[in-house]
Formats: sequence, C-alpha cells, structure tokens
Amino acid sequence: MRLLPLLLPLLLALAARAEEPPLAIGGMGSFHVGGREAQVSGRPAREVVLVPGARPVRIDPNGTYRVEGMYAQYHHPIRRQGQVPLLLWHGGGMTGVVWETTPDGREGWQHYFLRRGWSVYVSDAVERGRAGWAMSPEIFAGEPIFLTMADPWDRFRIGPGPGSFRARAANAGSQFPTEAYDRLMAQMVPRWTTTDAAQLAAYVALLEQVGPSVVLAHAQGGLFAMRAAQIRPALVRALVLIEPSGFGESTPAALAALRGLPILAVYGDFIEQDPRWTAIRQRGTEFFALAQNAGAGVEVLDLPAESIRGNGHLMMMERNNREIAARVQGWLAERGLWAE
Amino acid sequence: MRLLPLLLPLLLALAARAEEPPLAIGGMGSFHVGGREAQVSGRPAREVVLVPGARPVRIDPNGTYRVEGMYAQYHHPIRRQGQVPLLLWHGGGMTGVVWETTPDGREGWQHYFLRRGWSVYVSDAVERGRAGWAMSPEIFAGEPIFLTMADPWDRFRIGPGPGSFRARAANAGSQFPTEAYDRLMAQMVPRWTTTDAAQLAAYVALLEQVGPSVVLAHAQGGLFAMRAAQIRPALVRALVLIEPSGFGESTPAALAALRGLPILAVYGDFIEQDPRWTAIRQRGTEFFALAQNAGAGVEVLDLPAESIRGNGHLMMMERNNREIAARVQGWLAERGLWAE
Repeated sequence: MRLLPLLLPLLLALAARAEEPPLAIGGMGSFHVGGREAQVSGRPAREVVLVPGARPVRIDPNGTYRVEGMYAQYHHPIRRQGQVPLLLWHGGGMTGVVWETTPDGREGWQHYFLRRGWSVYVSDAVERGRAGWAMSPEIFAGEPIFLTMADPWDRFRIGPGPGSFRARAANAGSQFPTEAYDRLMAQMVPRWTTTDAAQLAAYVALLEQVGPSVVLAHAQGGLFAMRAAQIRPALVRALVLIEPSGFGESTPAALAALRGLPILAVYGDFIEQDPRWTAIRQRGTEFFALAQNAGAGVEVLDLPAESIRGNGHLMMMERNNREIAARVQGWLAERGLWAE
Repeated sequence: MRLLPLLLPLLLALAARAEEPPLAIGGMGSFHVGGREAQVSGRPAREVVLVPGARPVRIDPNGTYRVEGMYAQYHHPIRRQGQVPLLLWHGGGMTGVVWETTPDGREGWQHYFLRRGWSVYVSDAVERGRAGWAMSPEIFAGEPIFLTMADPWDRFRIGPGPGSFRARAANAGSQFPTEAYDRLMAQMVPRWTTTDAAQLAAYVALLEQVGPSVVLAHAQGGLFAMRAAQIRPALVRALVLIEPSGFGESTPAALAALRGLPILAVYGDFIEQDPRWTAIRQRGTEFFALAQNAGAGVEVLDLPAESIRGNGHLMMMERNNREIAARVQGWLAERGLWAE
C-alpha cells in the first residue's frame, strides 16, 4: 500500500518529464529571521471590535513591538546539485512572489532552479509581504509609496515610457505577458525609502542563518546583495544581479571584500531608449569596474547582444524567463557551483 | 545518470520515513486572485529617491490601483488522497505562515496534510502578507492595528490574561513553545477592521478559482469560511473551524445554505478562565445550534474533554500540533473526504 505513492514519482518522472527535470522536493519550510524590538509610547489606547458581533477589545498601541524581521521559505531538492543554497532576493515594491509562478501562470525561477537540484530560498524583505511592517511614522520613518497601475508599465520598460500604459502601448517585441498585467499589479506591495539599513541587516541575518550561498537579486535587491557580500564575504559564493538599481560601498575596504567573488550582471532590452535606465546601467558599469579592479570576477550578460530580445526589467516573469534562467544556470555551473 | 535522482525519493522514503508519510510533492505554485481597481485623486505628486545615489523618480499617487486581491500558494501531492483541495485560512493579524513551520522550527499543518495526500492551499487574506495592502485611509478606511509583544501572549491564552506577558507567566501546562515567542511575533502583521467585505469577496473568488474544497479556518478566518460557505455552498465540502471568532449570517436563507455541510469546531484549553473566550465560544454554540437546526452536521471537538490539555488559541503551532491535526484528519476521513 505504501509502495504506490513511493513509486509514483519515479514513474511520472520517467513518463512525462523528457523536457524538464522532475520537481523532486525533499524538504520545505519557512522562518522569520533578524529584526529587533522597538518601543512606542504616548499614543491613546482604543476600544476595537475585531470581529462583527464580538466584545470590544482594548488595544493599547503603547509598548514593545517585534519589528524589522524578514521572511524566508525554502524548498530542498532530494538530490542537491547546487553546491550551496540559492537565495532569491526581490526588488523594490515587490515580494518573493516575483520568483514563483509568473503572472500568466507559468513556472518561475523558483521552479527552474529547484528542478536542477538547488536548495532555493524565496524571501520577503523587511516591510514587504510576510515580513510584515511596522507603525509609521513612529517606527518606519516617512510614508510608504504605492504604485499606480501605470507606474511599472511605464517605468519597467514594458512600454516605452511615460504615457504608454494609458495607451496600452508595449515596446516592440516585448516579452512581458501583457494580458496578465493586472496579476502583476496584484502582487505589488507598498514600500518605504527609509528602511534600507533595516533591510540590509535582516539580509545579513538571513545569510548568517543559512550559511554560504549564491545570492540572485533583482533591482533594489542588488543593493542589498552587494552590501551584504561586502559585510559577510565568506557567506556569499557568487552574486547574480538582475538589472541592479543600487550598488555596493566603494571604500577601499568594502571593495577589497569582493576579491575573488564571481559576479554576473544581467541586462535586458530597451535600455538605451530610456535615460533613467541608461543612468542606472552606467552606475553599474562604474561600480563593476571598481569591483573588478579590486579582484572580483565580474561578467556582464547583455541579453540583446546575445540576440535575446524584448526583455524589460521584470525578465524573471517574462515569456522567455526559462531561456534567461538557463544562462544563469550555465554561468553558475561553469564556476563549479553546480554538479551534473 | 537521470535514474539516481528519480530513485532517491523511493530509497529515502523506504529508509527513513517509518513515522511520517513522505513529502511527495508533484506540483507547486502561487497566484493572486480577486480584487478590484480603485481610484485616488487630489494628492500631490512627489520626487522620490528610491535607491541611494539614483536619480529621483516622480511618484504621482493619483490614478488607478489594483487592490483587495489575495495570495495563495499551493502544493500538490503526487498521489492525491484528499478528495478535494484543502484550503488553510489564517486568523486576524496573521498570514498563511501560521500553517507553515512552527515558531520553534517544527513542521506545521501544511506539512501534515501534504504528507497525507491533500492538495494544500496556504493563503494570505486581503491586506495581509503577500496579498499587499492599499493606501489608507483613502482606500482602506480607518487605521491599522498593530499588536504589541504583550497582546497575543495575554489574549491568546498563552498566559492567564492581562499582565501575564510582563511576568512571562504561561498557563499551567501550556503547549505553546514560549521559548520561540519572538518568532511568533515576527510573523504578526497589521490589520484593519474595515476590510471584512473585501476579504470575504476575495475568499469567494479563491473558492471559485480552486473549485470545491475543504476549508480549514482559524479564528477570524472562521467568519469568512462560514460566510463563504453560505454564499457558495456548492464549493465548500466541509468546514473545520479552529476557535472561530466570527460566525455566519443567521437569516433563514443563509442558514439553509449550510444544509448537509459537515462542520467541525475545535476548542482548546483555558477557555472558562477567560470571560472573553467564554463569550466567543458561547456565540459559536449559539450559531452552531442554528446551523444544526438548518441541517448542517455540526460536531464540536473539545480538546480538554478528550484529555488533550494545554492548548491555547494558536494550537496549530503548539507542541502537540500533530496530535490535533490527526483528530481533524480522522474526522475528514470519516466523512469520505480522504481515501487511504
């Protein structure tokens, strides 16, 4: 009786998985890591009816809060081929969901790397998603930013700049699944611009808990990935940076910490037509030159130069997301971080 | 070469899983469902530096937002023994994380039911976790509630009421892993009290997308589970309610919709010593009497009466969480919703 479920993975895999390796998951779980306690005082208590018909509860907002932790969920493959865990760090205004199923319902990079034997950690940074957020402005200074429907379309190179969402105009040959754009917008979350130090501290705590890892980071996540690698160089075996929008520290000591670190920076299409993206990439070029001079092994994957066209800033969700993941996987294998 | 990873699940399972069935996952993914578009107007635009060193971006908060969707992640077993999917709905101030790994690092109910062949959906309700939240008070009326470190300890029967957290006093024989209490607090998230209608609408959309299911709901989730069952009775095959804090509609038509529905309500220990919990349970007793009269099949599992002692409101995370899950599993199997 117990044998049938045990044999089924084998049979299914043999029968149907000619194209993709099987999703052979041996363990999974989640946890919160990092954070601190914070105090709030001087605010009035109030009586709140939490559920219709229930007695009011006295909620006193004064006291101690647990804040600035982050959330991570892991899936371990049965046979580990990745030599260390692979941590997927999202960009600004997003959560770990960017790595899961794509807005149009295809498998994301979480699946791609799990199928190839990586232990994959998908996380939500401080303030985002399951990490939770703290009273603002008392604990999180400033106010959060919310993105309208138009913002990512216009700003992430789905369309050719301001006004393109209004016209539903996409860049020629765009790989974004525009028919599922509302599912992308459903996953966007508010962000602050005052929590960088807390986010970085939690990412460092994540690395300390998981141990030496490859970090694959998108956009704002690149800022934290580079700085975490500078703070804990022994815990980062390689960096894969998908259109990073922030960079490392450029003090001599911070740059020296990158010595020997393999770094792959990946850029999509349509950059030269947008001065903001041209400037972001230029800042990357400048930082990577400093890192290379300090002994990092920097490689830039320019997708259009490799005849991979039509990708915007959200390439991990776009139609050809597997093709791009394959380039990343190949690069990691070449660096001895993955075994056949 | 390809055979080794395929054989390993079998070998590992045969070797080591005498106690628990294997975690044989055949598919996984996530999605956002439900929600609507909302307009904001009349607010000033501002220039924001999103990442240190980058050019300012003009953020115009006026426009259309995608709001009030919810998030769900599913894992499918290779051999489905649950006759329909099992949806796990969290309580107030929490996210789907309550069903995952426990604060002290043990397997949660997500693992428990997956190992027994259920397709398990863990979700974040509107406003919580990966569902994201909307501008407030413009879109979400009122202000959010944040819980201090003391609140759940004092209010969820970990300790014996107000002041017990300050003294770190736990109820005698408490099953809560108090040494990991800060990990519980790291997973708590803000909540509003004005979003019930939006949460219910998204849960109904979830049921419509997934199809007929068993819904297992905690606390505030019980409110949505009972009302969703009344709105779409054909989509709910059974309700498991863990200390529900809200209940269904009691109009004759709403009650009639529950006819034939199996309902299991589970209550922990220490209720009689806390007037608030006594009142919540009393409201449940009254609603379940109405439901029973209308033809629902209501059963109450009173854990202390079964000599299962020490459980508070967060029983799915407590030390004996598997023992309680086994009672739920047995009840579902008896109702023909699970096949050996």
